[in-house]
Amino acid sequence: MENLLLKQIIALTNKSNPLISNLANAAAVLANYENINWCGFYLVEGDNLYLGPFQGEPACTVIPKGKGVCGKAFEEKKSVIVKNVKKFKGHIACSTMSRSEIVVPIISGGEVKAVIDIDAPVINRFDDKDREIIEEIAGFLAKLFIEGNVKDNHKDEEKNKPEAAIEKLREDYDL
Amino acid sequence: MENLLLKQIIALTNKSNPLISNLANAAAVLANYENINWCGFYLVEGDNLYLGPFQGEPACTVIPKGKGVCGKAFEEKKSVIVKNVKKFKGHIACSTMSRSEIVVPIISGGEVKAVIDIDAPVINRFDDKDREIIEEIAGFLAKLFIEGNVKDNHKDEEKNKPEAAIEKLREDYDL
Repeated sequence: MENLLLKQIIALTNKSNPLISNLANAAAVLANYENINWCGFYLVEGDNLYLGPFQGEPACTVIPKGKGVCGKAFEEKKSVIVKNVKKFKGHIACSTMSRSEIVVPIISGGEVKAVIDIDAPVINRFDDKDREIIEEIAGFLAKLFIEGNVKDNHKDEEKNKPEAAIEKLREDYDL
Repeated sequence: MENLLLKQIIALTNKSNPLISNLANAAAVLANYENINWCGFYLVEGDNLYLGPFQGEPACTVIPKGKGVCGKAFEEKKSVIVKNVKKFKGHIACSTMSRSEIVVPIISGGEVKAVIDIDAPVINRFDDKDREIIEEIAGFLAKLFIEGNVKDNHKDEEKNKPEAAIEKLREDYDL
């Protein structure tokens, strides 16, 4: 199956850009996911997750390891799908709109570096197919979590023009 | 005039949180600005602006000082309102939807640390009243751009619950 979101994220990100710029654009791509109300990143620092770039309503800024759906994915180093957040013990209600949720860890060097969090306004929104799509994206993004992200090498100018990159993808894939 | 966006941003941000978490939530608040298609931050690093947290379509990742509307606000250390982006020489078209734009620098210690960028899908969207509102927000956010942003002091737990904070504001201001 073609992972078009991943292809857009690949087109819009670049190891030579700051991590935050890459994640901000990746969140904007994830916002194209159908029938969701929130998507974005929490970044690991010590034993906490800190809010990173996202799209949607304001969100919790700090989530301790093991707490809520994000904290569970961080602690267990694996994806968590919650069909109905109201039935998830210890759920952190960032938005009253959210009914179901998927959280996928971004793992590099065996360590969780961040999590991708996507919320939907309907119950049972996410299944194993979504998990595969988002895990593939997480696998790609993991490569961007490198020490001392280089910030001063922007020769690949086409990558800095999102519309051109997306247009090219649309042509390549007949979208 | 009551600056309700600023009050929400004050309620949702905290010097003890990472800068990126604060800016991500601030962008989510700015997204409530009426009739806009993009809002967010570019962060200064050397002579470039790098894409930070935002809400809207994917955007340019790097903008050199002096280039485009953002680069002009950075270089001149002052707000720039562009009534019609098609008539702005050197405009960087991040989104084909954008018709008018306002960019306000966030200045701390005499230096531009970042810019707030808001795009609208209609021409002539922004006037001096908007500039005042956004400059007031920039003035507040400037205080968050401190050296070595402390990341491990989260005792003010209420600030980490955006809904509670917004609810309190709604009560305080009869919204």
